[in-house]
Amino acid sequence: MTKKTLKQNIYEIIFEADTPVGKVFDITLLIAIILSVIIVMLDSVHDLAAKYGGVFSIIEWVLTILFTIEYILRIYSVKKSSKYIFSFYGIIDLLSILPTYIGLFLVGGHYLMIIRILRLLRVFRVLKLARYVTAARSLGSALNNSRAKIIVFLEVVISVVIIIGSIMYLIEGPENGFTSIPVAIYWSIVTITTVGYGDIAPQTVLGQSLASVLMIIGYAIIAVPTGIISSEMIMGSQKKGKTAQVCQNCMFEDHDEDAKYCKKCGEKLS
Amino acid sequence: MTKKTLKQNIYEIIFEADTPVGKVFDITLLIAIILSVIIVMLDSVHDLAAKYGGVFSIIEWVLTILFTIEYILRIYSVKKSSKYIFSFYGIIDLLSILPTYIGLFLVGGHYLMIIRILRLLRVFRVLKLARYVTAARSLGSALNNSRAKIIVFLEVVISVVIIIGSIMYLIEGPENGFTSIPVAIYWSIVTITTVGYGDIAPQTVLGQSLASVLMIIGYAIIAVPTGIISSEMIMGSQKKGKTAQVCQNCMFEDHDEDAKYCKKCGEKLS
Amino acid sequence: MTKKTLKQNIYEIIFEADTPVGKVFDITLLIAIILSVIIVMLDSVHDLAAKYGGVFSIIEWVLTILFTIEYILRIYSVKKSSKYIFSFYGIIDLLSILPTYIGLFLVGGHYLMIIRILRLLRVFRVLKLARYVTAARSLGSALNNSRAKIIVFLEVVISVVIIIGSIMYLIEGPENGFTSIPVAIYWSIVTITTVGYGDIAPQTVLGQSLASVLMIIGYAIIAVPTGIISSEMIMGSQKKGKTAQVCQNCMFEDHDEDAKYCKKCGEKLS
Amino acid sequence: MTKKTLKQNIYEIIFEADTPVGKVFDITLLIAIILSVIIVMLDSVHDLAAKYGGVFSIIEWVLTILFTIEYILRIYSVKKSSKYIFSFYGIIDLLSILPTYIGLFLVGGHYLMIIRILRLLRVFRVLKLARYVTAARSLGSALNNSRAKIIVFLEVVISVVIIIGSIMYLIEGPENGFTSIPVAIYWSIVTITTVGYGDIAPQTVLGQSLASVLMIIGYAIIAVPTGIISSEMIMGSQKKGKTAQVCQNCMFEDHDEDAKYCKKCGEKLS
Repeated sequence: MTKKTLKQNIYEIIFEADTPVGKVFDITLLIAIILSVIIVMLDSVHDLAAKYGGVFSIIEWVLTILFTIEYILRIYSVKKSSKYIFSFYGIIDLLSILPTYIGLFLVGGHYLMIIRILRLLRVFRVLKLARYVTAARSLGSALNNSRAKIIVFLEVVISVVIIIGSIMYLIEGPENGFTSIPVAIYWSIVTITTVGYGDIAPQTVLGQSLASVLMIIGYAIIAVPTGIISSEMIMGSQKKGKTAQVCQNCMFEDHDEDAKYCKKCGEKLS
Repeated sequence: MTKKTLKQNIYEIIFEADTPVGKVFDITLLIAIILSVIIVMLDSVHDLAAKYGGVFSIIEWVLTILFTIEYILRIYSVKKSSKYIFSFYGIIDLLSILPTYIGLFLVGGHYLMIIRILRLLRVFRVLKLARYVTAARSLGSALNNSRAKIIVFLEVVISVVIIIGSIMYLIEGPENGFTSIPVAIYWSIVTITTVGYGDIAPQTVLGQSLASVLMIIGYAIIAVPTGIISSEMIMGSQKKGKTAQVCQNCMFEDHDEDAKYCKKCGEKLS
Repeated sequence: MTKKTLKQNIYEIIFEADTPVGKVFDITLLIAIILSVIIVMLDSVHDLAAKYGGVFSIIEWVLTILFTIEYILRIYSVKKSSKYIFSFYGIIDLLSILPTYIGLFLVGGHYLMIIRILRLLRVFRVLKLARYVTAARSLGSALNNSRAKIIVFLEVVISVVIIIGSIMYLIEGPENGFTSIPVAIYWSIVTITTVGYGDIAPQTVLGQSLASVLMIIGYAIIAVPTGIISSEMIMGSQKKGKTAQVCQNCMFEDHDEDAKYCKKCGEKLS
Repeated sequence: MTKKTLKQNIYEIIFEADTPVGKVFDITLLIAIILSVIIVMLDSVHDLAAKYGGVFSIIEWVLTILFTIEYILRIYSVKKSSKYIFSFYGIIDLLSILPTYIGLFLVGGHYLMIIRILRLLRVFRVLKLARYVTAARSLGSALNNSRAKIIVFLEVVISVVIIIGSIMYLIEGPENGFTSIPVAIYWSIVTITTVGYGDIAPQTVLGQSLASVLMIIGYAIIAVPTGIISSEMIMGSQKKGKTAQVCQNCMFEDHDEDAKYCKKCGEKLS
C-alpha cells in the first residue's frame, strides 16, 4: 500500500465512513448538527432565549466555526472543488454557515434562522451506511415506479377537494366560517385528509351531509395510495431475490440470488 | 400522404396531442383552465373582489370567449357533432361557458359560479398522455374489481355508524350536543373516519367509552379497504406476467407465461 | 314439475330471490326497512317531530303491521318454526315489530326507539345476491384467518394506551383537563387513533412531547393491521383461483380453476 | 412417570399452561391483574375515591399479598432464582408489588401509582398460548425485517416536521399560537399524523396553504409504512410455501417447494 497524501487522508476521513477515524468524525458531526438544530429551536422559546441567550450564541458560534473549517476542508480535499460547491450537499453546507456570519452585519436576521434549520438535511449525508442506503433506494424506486399512478390519484383528490369546497362555500357561506372558496378548499383538505381541526365545521344539515360524504371518501380513498405503494414494494421485493441467470443444462430461469446450482436439474450455475 | 382538409387539421390540433401544434394547444388550454378556476376562487375572497373585481371580470370574459371559440371548433371538426355535444366532455364544455353568458341577463348569479368551477374537470381531458391513461385505467380496474367487497364494507360501516349514532343520542342526549339522531350519526361518521372535529364530543363516561370503541373500530377497519385495494392491485400487476399469446384453436387469450398448451382446448401453443 | 303448495310458494317468495315475485318482495322489503329507519331518525329531530309527528306515527304503524304480517308468514312457511324464531334473524324480526306495540301500553318508550333502529340489520338478509355473499365471505375469512394477529395487535395498542394515558394523567393533571386516569386513557385513544377531537389537549412541554410520541406511534402502527389484512387477502385470492386437480399424465398440479386441459402436457383434466 | 417434587409441581402450575390446574392458575392471575389495574384507574376518579377509597384500599392489599405469594413461589420453584429475578418479567413482577409496600411508609406516593399500572404488562406472560405466540413472532419478524426502511421513513418524517414547523413559526408567529419552534413542531406532528386537535391552527393564507401541503403529505405518506409492513408480511407468508426439506449433503434448509436439487451444492433432494 502506497503512502497517502494529506489530501487523500482528509478525504477519507470526511467523505467516507470505513475507517475508525472516519466513523468518529461522522458521529461528531452528527452530534454537532443535532446540537445546532436544538439550539435554534430553544432560542425561539422566549423564556429560554431571555435566560440563556448568551450561552446559545456562544455554542452557535463555536459550531459555525467548526462547520466552516469542515466546509473548507471539504473544498480542499475533494478532487473537483467546483463540482462539490455546486452539488446539493455543497449548497446545504454553505447555507449552514452563512446565516451566522450575515447575522453579524444584519440586524433582525430573524428569517436567517430558518436557513440554519436546513442544517438538518446534512444528517442524511452522515447516514451513509449501506443498509440505510439500500432501504432508501428501495423506497425511492417504489415511489418512482408508482409516480404516474400517484399523480393521477392526486389529481382526483385535488379536483374533489376544489369542487366540494366550492359547493360547501355556497351551502354554508361566510356566516358559518366558510368566508371564501380558498378557505372552503382549505376546510376540504382538512376534512378529506381526516385531520379535522374543527376551527371551521359545517353547521347546516346539508353541509354536514356533504361533509359526511367527503369524510367517507377521504377515509376510503386512502386505500388507493396504500395499495399503489404496497403493490410496488411487493413487486420490488419479488424481483430483488432473483438473478437473471439461466441454467445452461435445462434452461430453467427462475433462480434465487443465492442459488449456485439449478434447482431443477442440479447443474452448476456460472 | 394525402393533403388534409382544414377540418382534419383542426381535429388533430384540438383532439390529439401527437403534433407539436397539438401539444402547444393542450398546454395553452391547460393554463387557461387553471387560470379561470383560480379567478373564480379569488373572486370569492371579499377583499380581492372589491379591489380587483374589474380585472377578474375582464379575464373571465376573455377566457370565456376563447372557450366558446374552442367549443365551436370542436363541434365543427368532429365527425358526428351530436355525439360530441351529448358526450360527458361535451356537456362539461358547454357548462364551462354558459354561466358567464347567463350572468349577463341574470342578476345575482351567485350559484352559477359553482358551475364555472366544473371547468376543472376539463383538465382530465388534456392529460391524455399514454402513461397517465394506463395508470388511471389500472387504478380504475382495481377499484372496479373490488366493487362488491367495497359495497359490503360500506354497508357494514354505514350500519355501525347508524346504530352507534342512535345509541349515542340516547346516552348523551341534546344537552351534550347530540340534538337528534341525524346529528349523532354525523358525529359517528366524524369519529369512525378519524376526522374528529371536536365540535360535538361525548361528555358522559358511558358516551366516552362507546366513542372509544367506535374510534378503535374506525382505526382498525381502515385496514379492510386498504387490504382489498392492495390485493386487487397486486393481482393486477401479477397478471402482467401473462403472455400475449392467443390459442390458434379456440382463441382463448389468458395464458400463463409458462403454459405450453392451451388450458381450455389442449391445443399446443406456439 | 309438481304443483307447489301455498306454503312452498310463500317460502319461495319470502326466503328466496330467484323468482320475479321474490325479487319484487325483496325490493319492497328493502324500501320498507330503509323508510322505517329514516322515520325513526327524523322523529328524533325536535322541529320535525313537532310538525309531522302524526304522519310519522301513521307510517310507523303501517310498516309495523306489514312487518308483522311478514313475520307471521315467515313462521308459517318455514319448515321448523322454532328454529327460525330463535335464529339471529328471527330475533331481529321480532325486535323490529315489538317496540311499536309495547309503545301502546308504555308511556315514554324513548329507549324502544333504539330497538327499532336494529331493523337496519334486516337489510343484510335482503342482500343475498351471490356476488355480495362471496365478497362478504372472502372478507370474513380474511378477518378470521388474521384473528390471532389482530388480537395481539389490539393487546399492544390497549397496553400502550393505558400506560401512556396513566403517565399523561401524572404529567398534565386535572388542571389541564386530564381529570382522572380513565379520562386520560380516553384522550390516549382519541390520539392514537388520530381522531383528535381537541376537547382535551396537553398543555405542558413534557405532555406535548409524550403526545407527539403517541401520535407517531398511532400513525405508524396503523400499518400493522393493514399489513395483516392485505397479506391475508392476497393469500386468499391466490388460493381461490386454483383447483386441487392433478394432471393424470404429467402429474402437474398448479392448475387454474377454469382449466380444462393441463397447461404443461395438454392432457384433458377430469 | 416418576413422582414429581413439590417444586416441580409448583413450577408446572405457575410457569406452564398445559395442566388443568395451570390453566385455572393463569385465568385467576389474569383476572387479578385486570382487577388491580381497574382499581388503580378508578382510584384516580375523585368522586369514586372519596366514596369507595376504603374498599379500593382493601382490594389492593389483598391483591398485593397474593402477588407477593406468587412472586415468592416463582423465585422458589424456578431453577436459577437470580436469572428469574433479573429477567424482564422478574423485574415487572417486583415492580407490581413494591409500590403498595412503599406507600405504607411514604406519604403522597402519587407517582407510585404509575408503577402499579405496569402490572398490565404481566398480562402478556399469561397469554402464552401457541397461536398468539406464533402471531406475535410473525408480527415481530415483519417489523424487524423492515427496520431499516422504517428508520429511513421516520427520518424523512422528522425532517419534514422540523423544517415545516420552523417555517410555520416564521409565517404564523406567536400571535397565532405558534409561540416557539418546538410548539410549531408539535403542531406539525399533530397535523402530519392527521390527529388535528385544533388547539393550534394556522390563521394566515400562507400558513393555511403550507398546512394543506403538510396534510396531503401526511395523508399520502402513510402509504409508505403500510406498504413496507404489507410487503414484509406477504413475503413472510409466502416463505411458508417452502418445504421443510434439508439437503443431506450440505444441510442447507431454505428450499422452494418445487426444488428437486439443492440450490447450494447440487445434491438431489429426496
